[in-house]
Amino acid sequence: MKVGIINVTGYSGCELARILYRHPEVELASVTGRSAAGQKLGDVFPHLAALDLTITEQLDGNLDLAFSALPHKASAEAVIPALEQGLKVVDISADFRLKSADEYQEWYGVQHQDPNYLEEAVYGLTELHREEVKTARLVANPGCYPTSAILALAPVIEQSLIESDVIVDSKSGVSGGGRSLNMTNHFSEVNENVFAYALQGHRHLPEITQELSALTSDAPSITFLTHLIPMTRGILSSCYAKFKPSFLDNGTDPIQRIREIYEEYYADDPFVRVTPQPPQTKQTLGNNLCLIHPTVDLRTGRLIVISCLDNLVKGAAGQAVQNMNLMCGFPETESLEALAVYP
Amino acid sequence: MKVGIINVTGYSGCELARILYRHPEVELASVTGRSAAGQKLGDVFPHLAALDLTITEQLDGNLDLAFSALPHKASAEAVIPALEQGLKVVDISADFRLKSADEYQEWYGVQHQDPNYLEEAVYGLTELHREEVKTARLVANPGCYPTSAILALAPVIEQSLIESDVIVDSKSGVSGGGRSLNMTNHFSEVNENVFAYALQGHRHLPEITQELSALTSDAPSITFLTHLIPMTRGILSSCYAKFKPSFLDNGTDPIQRIREIYEEYYADDPFVRVTPQPPQTKQTLGNNLCLIHPTVDLRTGRLIVISCLDNLVKGAAGQAVQNMNLMCGFPETESLEALAVYP
Amino acid sequence: MKVGIINVTGYSGCELARILYRHPEVELASVTGRSAAGQKLGDVFPHLAALDLTITEQLDGNLDLAFSALPHKASAEAVIPALEQGLKVVDISADFRLKSADEYQEWYGVQHQDPNYLEEAVYGLTELHREEVKTARLVANPGCYPTSAILALAPVIEQSLIESDVIVDSKSGVSGGGRSLNMTNHFSEVNENVFAYALQGHRHLPEITQELSALTSDAPSITFLTHLIPMTRGILSSCYAKFKPSFLDNGTDPIQRIREIYEEYYADDPFVRVTPQPPQTKQTLGNNLCLIHPTVDLRTGRLIVISCLDNLVKGAAGQAVQNMNLMCGFPETESLEALAVYP
Amino acid sequence: MKVGIINVTGYSGCELARILYRHPEVELASVTGRSAAGQKLGDVFPHLAALDLTITEQLDGNLDLAFSALPHKASAEAVIPALEQGLKVVDISADFRLKSADEYQEWYGVQHQDPNYLEEAVYGLTELHREEVKTARLVANPGCYPTSAILALAPVIEQSLIESDVIVDSKSGVSGGGRSLNMTNHFSEVNENVFAYALQGHRHLPEITQELSALTSDAPSITFLTHLIPMTRGILSSCYAKFKPSFLDNGTDPIQRIREIYEEYYADDPFVRVTPQPPQTKQTLGNNLCLIHPTVDLRTGRLIVISCLDNLVKGAAGQAVQNMNLMCGFPETESLEALAVYP
Repeated sequence: MKVGIINVTGYSGCELARILYRHPEVELASVTGRSAAGQKLGDVFPHLAALDLTITEQLDGNLDLAFSALPHKASAEAVIPALEQGLKVVDISADFRLKSADEYQEWYGVQHQDPNYLEEAVYGLTELHREEVKTARLVANPGCYPTSAILALAPVIEQSLIESDVIVDSKSGVSGGGRSLNMTNHFSEVNENVFAYALQGHRHLPEITQELSALTSDAPSITFLTHLIPMTRGILSSCYAKFKPSFLDNGTDPIQRIREIYEEYYADDPFVRVTPQPPQTKQTLGNNLCLIHPTVDLRTGRLIVISCLDNLVKGAAGQAVQNMNLMCGFPETESLEALAVYP
Repeated sequence: MKVGIINVTGYSGCELARILYRHPEVELASVTGRSAAGQKLGDVFPHLAALDLTITEQLDGNLDLAFSALPHKASAEAVIPALEQGLKVVDISADFRLKSADEYQEWYGVQHQDPNYLEEAVYGLTELHREEVKTARLVANPGCYPTSAILALAPVIEQSLIESDVIVDSKSGVSGGGRSLNMTNHFSEVNENVFAYALQGHRHLPEITQELSALTSDAPSITFLTHLIPMTRGILSSCYAKFKPSFLDNGTDPIQRIREIYEEYYADDPFVRVTPQPPQTKQTLGNNLCLIHPTVDLRTGRLIVISCLDNLVKGAAGQAVQNMNLMCGFPETESLEALAVYP
Repeated sequence: MKVGIINVTGYSGCELARILYRHPEVELASVTGRSAAGQKLGDVFPHLAALDLTITEQLDGNLDLAFSALPHKASAEAVIPALEQGLKVVDISADFRLKSADEYQEWYGVQHQDPNYLEEAVYGLTELHREEVKTARLVANPGCYPTSAILALAPVIEQSLIESDVIVDSKSGVSGGGRSLNMTNHFSEVNENVFAYALQGHRHLPEITQELSALTSDAPSITFLTHLIPMTRGILSSCYAKFKPSFLDNGTDPIQRIREIYEEYYADDPFVRVTPQPPQTKQTLGNNLCLIHPTVDLRTGRLIVISCLDNLVKGAAGQAVQNMNLMCGFPETESLEALAVYP
Repeated sequence: MKVGIINVTGYSGCELARILYRHPEVELASVTGRSAAGQKLGDVFPHLAALDLTITEQLDGNLDLAFSALPHKASAEAVIPALEQGLKVVDISADFRLKSADEYQEWYGVQHQDPNYLEEAVYGLTELHREEVKTARLVANPGCYPTSAILALAPVIEQSLIESDVIVDSKSGVSGGGRSLNMTNHFSEVNENVFAYALQGHRHLPEITQELSALTSDAPSITFLTHLIPMTRGILSSCYAKFKPSFLDNGTDPIQRIREIYEEYYADDPFVRVTPQPPQTKQTLGNNLCLIHPTVDLRTGRLIVISCLDNLVKGAAGQAVQNMNLMCGFPETESLEALAVYP
């Protein structure tokens, strides 16, 4: 099968190329990039020199599926024509994630190019939408933060175990902000530093709310705060909520019980692992796992869930390949089995 | 005035030496260290070579005040004899922070050597106990995490503006764990990594609870979760709570109002700065400030307070010198005015 | 084929496990570790949880080949019995690298356990000894620094293009120092820091001298200086030498000429890439490439060669698997084709 | 005395403000910046909030001395008018460092605005030009790399102890590249990475050659190679040269002898310390020292000198204040005595 990557020159795009390189069912046949058009892929990204490709302005050749790794707005502009030419598309941007065009406009500041596609698009968090992904023509790949937050909270929200007040405190490495230059990725500004940002709401909040609300009749009220920390890859989310009294009143060990609930919930998901110890982002570097550790703060009876992942893999390119695998009938784990690079 | 440092060879100890080096009222006359006894201070710490001192096993000379930078338990064993010889003491360990000997034993796993001193000791968070510090003989210097958490929450708790449920999500650099070797300060394990630890309660929790409970009749229920991030110095705490309805029902802009409350609360505190933007740990590197940014998550009506500091300065040695200054009648800011080293 | 790893609990050992996990011809059947014996591999290294193995004290089962990732001296003690039981062995320690038992004793401070094996052992830098490796029973895997230095200098030394004075200035990440705790891998000591160490000769110097001297009748006089820099993986060596006049007197562009010499020299080596731009360690993270950039400082007529690699892959575990592949008749690149994880 | 900083918004500029904040003889009266004109200094740099200054487009007020922290070319354009208004100037840019206008044009690609000033300007490496600095009207502050290289090599070159072939292998933190955005200070590109750059000659080479050549009748032939490493502050230079036979033929211990030569050479220089152990950049963080460790590689008889400093202090703003102190008759060390911030 021939696939293309629209905008290979960002971090999600070049990570897609890395992962697809060894995919036995896929030929990466075309890669685009605006400023780098005409250059060899290996000249822009020496680690991809083994892929003998030239970057072009437009997708090229007879492709079956395209990944778009463009920023929002630009992505919709490239994705819609591709769909209309008959390609399947996995869009890594935010352009098709929200079901509401109004909400899209509120958070992203632009009018949606064609809201009709919002209904058709499948939110590509495989663990929640596996069956719909299999038959989708257009998959909206989730944001990196939402992947960690939604997977951390879906079991307890779907099973109505917690009150509606939820805090998600997320810590991200710098690559989540992309390859474009700005002061929050200047090494000297970010190194030996940590800070919170987007205190009035990160753009990833509406995805989290949309997906978690769909699991329950009692929509959660989420405070989602993002922090930048001095590392390249990785997101860790610490989630806090109050159990409903019924959960704690049950006589058995709540820590044991909550772990079993999560293990059962994710029993058939190859890329979610419920861990007995608090997980570390380093345990996911370069691979497609989301590690989740639910526990109970026994002094206060609160739920704590720690989840982590590699923002460029399960939070972007790896999830996209996982979606492609399902859309095209390949094994879900194909080319995503590599273990994390540690230390 | 002659002062000594018990255990100069840890990070708090050598940071004390750095700060005291230029203090015009103080002669650093004696420094101790167990394994390094007999060595020149400048051979162990080349950055302190300008201080012409030899490390000894015991404090030496006719001192007026001693700092103890020993670990808990060992510190009490050294501090009590010093007090009995008539010295004033600032103890950086946890040995005299908790008023309850039982709670000390529960959290630190050892029986307290002499609980009588617990009553006398003043918890040396200057902003809360300035007057008591001035006349104290024994000051228990606060922990690094508690300093950030208590200062972040004291105004709203003292003024009964929030409900009792409080989340404190703290992120710390590695130096907070000290200079002794263990896997959580091995560079290759910690670099490019973030993880939560002490999920069943960090030892700094009882201090936070003790001090915040003393400000209110309605003791807060605190979930305190600590995270290690790949940087050397700095702590940032993100605190979350629900406002009481009366706060939000007031017609005026709640963000503006909460900032004014904090600014007023800390108006006379030279080392607390209420910031208009979310603060960054890098803005405190090497200096004694605690930066605090209170705000309101307008979507949910929740309080968010971000606070940060240098764990070895305001979180340890700088706070200790601030306490010494007050105990000895020097200006509170003496030798603590240096600006942060940025970037 | 069944293989075992002696001392899986160090960084070279667990990196071997990571690489072998997907090797189609190999079953990793046994892993040993002293302090961790009895534990599940995935409990010690969560990123290896997919490998369902228990750490044992001794190799177990009917193995064909063993890797030893023990420190020197301990390694010889484990390797010799394995050889005598009929296993092939790739030894990652220094115990069989030097041909001279005297030199081994001089640099490592212990008498060699059985110098007879020094003659038999093949120095497993595949690019220099490919044919001998294919038939070897015992391969001594090169050190991480020597791999970068020898590959950088072999072409010009073998072809007698440079004078004998050679400077190798190497910069290494911290993981090269292993997983055992010491002050030079304490995060707070190493982060935001760079320093030279081993100024009177690093233990890897005799390997470099041995292998480069074997290529020429005119033994080079090498100053080799090692530096620790604040990153986890990666070694970069900057090598300096004076060209013989005959090289520069030749009329053609010397920069072009030196690159062609290197490209030709390594034309058949899948894991050496001669790069048109100065290489970066990040371009090798997690993979088995050594990137080499030779050039000429036109102002002084000096040769400069920059080489880099991942010290745990081409500098240790990857090279070991490359050797195993040859020793066992598998394709040289089997399970080593993954692209670098970037950024 | 009133001073101003032209272009306070770069790293050298804001570091000057930090250092001058506590200078008892100086009032920082004016700070300029192009894009930030009109903003409060503390809004742009929160760590400087204690300085109540507004950034202006042009220097303002009746100043005695100005520092220019502009990039080259722009700096000359601002410095010359300031001189003509009667101010003393310390220029941190490269515009007045080279004595030859041709060489300036060759390396910086622009014609010098007024070569007459090249003769007048004093190269402000205090240790070499202290007496000239005292009476200078215009001091050209040295580059960060040259400071480390020249101080490392001046003693042996002035005393004709080495052959002319010299290698300087320098490793720099990222802040040396300034605050402007480019791919070589993007965190995700630089973190966990090391690479050599400017292989055909860094712009700091002609300064090094100019100053070292002035010390000897036998101009050295220098290969100077720069490397970027993942830290914010600090430069470490490793210098290699061959001793003249007469040095080694002398019977006494050459390591001891070379150290004494350096100690004597720098005996009266408060900011150069000859260290018994190889120095670490971390030992200089935030202070004005240059640490130098000369030694002899006994196997080859080569000189190795390791030098290090904080590129923003002794390599820029600290050196500039040291020069100002001398130009204005203040003690050379005024406001520069703070110890390094460690760890």
